[in-house]
Amino acid sequence: MIQNPISLQEVRIADEFWSKYEELVRGTVIPYQWEALNDRVPGAEPSYAIRNFRIAAGLEEGEFGGLVFQDSDVAKWLEAVGYSLSSHPDPELERLADEVIDIIVKAQHEDGYINTYFTIKEPGRRWTNLLDCHELYCAGHLMEAAVAYYQATGKRKLLDAACRYADYIDTVFGPEPDKLQGYDGHQEIELALVKLYKATGNEKYLRLSRYFIDQRGRKPHFFIQEWERRGHIGYWRQEPTGEPDLKYNQSHLPVREQDAAVGHAVRAVYMYSAMADLALLDGDEELAEACRRLWSSITEKQMYITGGIGSTHHGEAFSFDYDLPNDTVYAETCASIGLIFFAHRMLLLEPRSEYADVLERALYNNVIGSMSQDGKHYFYVNPLEVWPEASRHNPGRRHVKPVRQPWFGCSCCPPNVARLISSLGRYIYTAKDDTIYAHLYIGSEATAPLSCGDVRLEQQSSLPWDGAVKLTVRPEREQRFAIALRLPGWCGEARLAVNGQAVDYALEHGYARIERVWSPGDTIEWELSMEPLLIQAHPYVRANAGKAAIQRGPLVYCLEEADHEAPLSSIALPGKPVFRLRRDPGLPGHPVVIESEGNSDAVADDPRLYRPSMKRSKPVRVKAIPYFLWGNRTPGEMCVWIRS
Amino acid sequence: MIQNPISLQEVRIADEFWSKYEELVRGTVIPYQWEALNDRVPGAEPSYAIRNFRIAAGLEEGEFGGLVFQDSDVAKWLEAVGYSLSSHPDPELERLADEVIDIIVKAQHEDGYINTYFTIKEPGRRWTNLLDCHELYCAGHLMEAAVAYYQATGKRKLLDAACRYADYIDTVFGPEPDKLQGYDGHQEIELALVKLYKATGNEKYLRLSRYFIDQRGRKPHFFIQEWERRGHIGYWRQEPTGEPDLKYNQSHLPVREQDAAVGHAVRAVYMYSAMADLALLDGDEELAEACRRLWSSITEKQMYITGGIGSTHHGEAFSFDYDLPNDTVYAETCASIGLIFFAHRMLLLEPRSEYADVLERALYNNVIGSMSQDGKHYFYVNPLEVWPEASRHNPGRRHVKPVRQPWFGCSCCPPNVARLISSLGRYIYTAKDDTIYAHLYIGSEATAPLSCGDVRLEQQSSLPWDGAVKLTVRPEREQRFAIALRLPGWCGEARLAVNGQAVDYALEHGYARIERVWSPGDTIEWELSMEPLLIQAHPYVRANAGKAAIQRGPLVYCLEEADHEAPLSSIALPGKPVFRLRRDPGLPGHPVVIESEGNSDAVADDPRLYRPSMKRSKPVRVKAIPYFLWGNRTPGEMCVWIRS
Repeated sequence: MIQNPISLQEVRIADEFWSKYEELVRGTVIPYQWEALNDRVPGAEPSYAIRNFRIAAGLEEGEFGGLVFQDSDVAKWLEAVGYSLSSHPDPELERLADEVIDIIVKAQHEDGYINTYFTIKEPGRRWTNLLDCHELYCAGHLMEAAVAYYQATGKRKLLDAACRYADYIDTVFGPEPDKLQGYDGHQEIELALVKLYKATGNEKYLRLSRYFIDQRGRKPHFFIQEWERRGHIGYWRQEPTGEPDLKYNQSHLPVREQDAAVGHAVRAVYMYSAMADLALLDGDEELAEACRRLWSSITEKQMYITGGIGSTHHGEAFSFDYDLPNDTVYAETCASIGLIFFAHRMLLLEPRSEYADVLERALYNNVIGSMSQDGKHYFYVNPLEVWPEASRHNPGRRHVKPVRQPWFGCSCCPPNVARLISSLGRYIYTAKDDTIYAHLYIGSEATAPLSCGDVRLEQQSSLPWDGAVKLTVRPEREQRFAIALRLPGWCGEARLAVNGQAVDYALEHGYARIERVWSPGDTIEWELSMEPLLIQAHPYVRANAGKAAIQRGPLVYCLEEADHEAPLSSIALPGKPVFRLRRDPGLPGHPVVIESEGNSDAVADDPRLYRPSMKRSKPVRVKAIPYFLWGNRTPGEMCVWIRS
Repeated sequence: MIQNPISLQEVRIADEFWSKYEELVRGTVIPYQWEALNDRVPGAEPSYAIRNFRIAAGLEEGEFGGLVFQDSDVAKWLEAVGYSLSSHPDPELERLADEVIDIIVKAQHEDGYINTYFTIKEPGRRWTNLLDCHELYCAGHLMEAAVAYYQATGKRKLLDAACRYADYIDTVFGPEPDKLQGYDGHQEIELALVKLYKATGNEKYLRLSRYFIDQRGRKPHFFIQEWERRGHIGYWRQEPTGEPDLKYNQSHLPVREQDAAVGHAVRAVYMYSAMADLALLDGDEELAEACRRLWSSITEKQMYITGGIGSTHHGEAFSFDYDLPNDTVYAETCASIGLIFFAHRMLLLEPRSEYADVLERALYNNVIGSMSQDGKHYFYVNPLEVWPEASRHNPGRRHVKPVRQPWFGCSCCPPNVARLISSLGRYIYTAKDDTIYAHLYIGSEATAPLSCGDVRLEQQSSLPWDGAVKLTVRPEREQRFAIALRLPGWCGEARLAVNGQAVDYALEHGYARIERVWSPGDTIEWELSMEPLLIQAHPYVRANAGKAAIQRGPLVYCLEEADHEAPLSSIALPGKPVFRLRRDPGLPGHPVVIESEGNSDAVADDPRLYRPSMKRSKPVRVKAIPYFLWGNRTPGEMCVWIRS
């Protein structure tokens, strides 16, 4: 009997759709990012990240470069490398990673401290500006990298260094009067310490994570006190700043009292992920309840249909309920990745299909849409409506880029995509007690370590283009246990067959649970209907009034100027559109595109800016392509929400 | 024979609609602003403007307060006082104005210079930062005030001071090598010098205006050179700044080469006004052509239906063609007033009804909508769509206020409204050769000085609630001349009668011109149809796709939450709405409101953020009120553009 729900780490992806992403990350993204981290990508903003570590290690002379949290890019790259090596050993890549780890360990101080900014630029000012300087954030990423690399290779060098650093941090922060009663301005270490605890079994790390979570938001407010100690001087400008905005980093209230997702979206979801981890490990129902409230706040009131979160670029933040503008949107890639982290942990806490629905939504739309098909260009902001001229000429929309960029000065997103995709296998299943839950339908081979013995699962899936899923179940011997299949929120009807025989099923929190004695080689067929859906938003979402979006399976669709006459805003779908599906060889991966009749009122023969309403329109063919593929042709307008 | 077209200055307004605005300005706004200028309005940001002059005059000790261009608020107030005294003598107000003028003149330097900022705060640094510091802008406003006050009272004290200042400025700026080949960062003096020339006949002022206009945008760029001389230090922050954005203040190109309205909207229209002045005075067809191009750029591609201009709060600026977002709008009050200045001068240049149409549109909507019915609260930004929660919680919309504010730290708008309304009479007619053009239909008495002698015109008008206009013509004796009546762009059909007899008419550039021998007491009846119109925007205006606005006569209408269930975005008009009109005693001034059947799809029984499109709706009553009256009830949502 498995006591705790587990995420299946040993999953090998073999999937028509996803294998090429995994391949892209392994063959292109990881090597490309290695070049970027070494400032060798022509035309891209330099990273300085490896160079900083070399300087801090005494291997090179020079000044610190990049942002104060530049170290985290190296860590996220190493984490991705770790995941990639787990499934695809690569001695050359491992050698490169070992070299980087050598440098990092050389840059570690006697007491365990690792941070190139404070080592090079502000020695002696450690822990004086937790609000802005991301020290514990960088530490957290290093821990995540260490755990991933250790699990992949068995090598302890970075893990030991991370533990030494964590041990040192534990001497600095805590409830004792001689320690700092503080926490980081950018949450991350909280979830990383949980991973470190799971990898090492050392409860100290779990206690420290719990401390950071529960101390946050308590009065007197740490960030106010710290700001006063600094004489009100901030990091970003060397001049007095106003009192810190505690909502921005979710330290305005004790986390257990928080009801609404506010502030910087990435900070928020990283913190909620750690809260869910602790709620599960500690059986802490109060914390679990806070997680559920914050989950609802995001997914019922503040999430784009693409799984994007963060409505405003001011502070890369949530704004308020139902404020989901499509054009001035933020929807940062990292925030959707953090939402996936949160969703995954909620699934471990309690398998309910709504968590997996959101996980899938963010994954298939916002996250993979952020990366170009060549793996070398990224969106940081993932808009639902683009007018390239507005991005150029209206300053309020300048943050929305109509084409993916080669790299960013603040390059948090590309390595985050890499580490997510290279660890995608572990999001497919969870297991709890005697039940294996299948959340995602991705061709793969997995082993679920049930108490009755290991169960191998082979999955074949034709998603996202088709709804046929087949699982072959291979327990070591005949065994009674359960397999629970998620019925996706987008699926109107699903047919289940076991060993070729149709089977009725009841839903339990959105899962079709089949408990029986399974024999090696038993098969489950799960046929999901994938009718194109016309989706509307809650009427409180002002931005989508009178509009609809097209979704089929997990994929949200969009219109692009490449297929239509601009402006796209002139196009309206008929009352009851008849959708036609076809594979389009003109787009990367030959995706299913959805076509329909429509009307355009872009009657351009009257130049007047304002004129009597004419209600004239002409028929047009509407062609919707998967959102994740937008921006791979001639740059132009794009929209997800269509007048309807 | 009148050689030059003239604006009729001697017009007395007697109008059901407008007299109360004039009254409001005289009885409330001017006294209230006097209190504000003296920092005596509780709860409002202090102005410091009078105090600065007292300090500069040596009457008080203290520091400069307010913005670098604070002087202009005093000047605009004095200008409004001048106009008000012209039509309504008021010895007490005149005494107050004389006292202020005494202080201003005391603050004038030996050489003629007047500017409290540089007198108090940065003596010795005159003319070192024309880009940012508004010196010539303040000078211009002082000149406008001096002319208005002189014309109202015959008193020359301020006029003489203004001339001394202008004479001094003429020794500083000009083509001669020992002078500055520069101009101001905020255009204003150009049009003021034309007024000073007209009041004094001194051609030096006209030459100087011409110099500022024609020097602007020439290479080498003055603002770049000046910025280099300042070591790249700006005014707003004492640190090096990037190269000045020349488009912001329209100095990127020689004005004659400019095709598109760009940059800060107020700066732009003040400059275009001076260009039109000079084009007329100099018979300069090249400059006139530039004015026409810039006029088209604004009114055919960058103007809101309310006559608001400036689509973005970043730089209070134009953005680009057809970019007219309703929610992140700027549409500053001053910019619409400047557009009225420009339109008026274009009418002097060539009477075409399109200029008057825009003038009227800006006046009846953006401008009077900016002021509360009590004259004490103002909008600086005039949105076409308001969601109060978004104004509070979405930083990209924080500049949009859902309620009028008592005063502004940068209080350019309220005194600008005061000077416009108190001089409104001069916008009603122009005269050219032997034709009197009636542009606005406002009850009034005017005298047109034709070459054949003075012609008195009495106008009665029931606008904006009804379309009946009656003119009584009183030449000194029987005379042949012409009266041209504007057929407004919003009017489908107009009936003309002279002395009770129906008369056919042909249109000449939008005017029904009646040339005949007029006898004293002849009457013209001009019956304008005022059917409510459903207006659509050009399809390139993405923000208004699928939407329509309601207009009746010059008034644009809007919906308010006070009359509807929020969100207003849920409301749609039927395909062919049947409009019902009624006077509403529940709103200030008992306006005509427009009602229609409509539908709302705010079906709130499904809490899901995204769900299959249901196309469910319920019938609702739609009630539209004049835009200028929005925000006079319980604060809530407002929108001009309605789904249709």
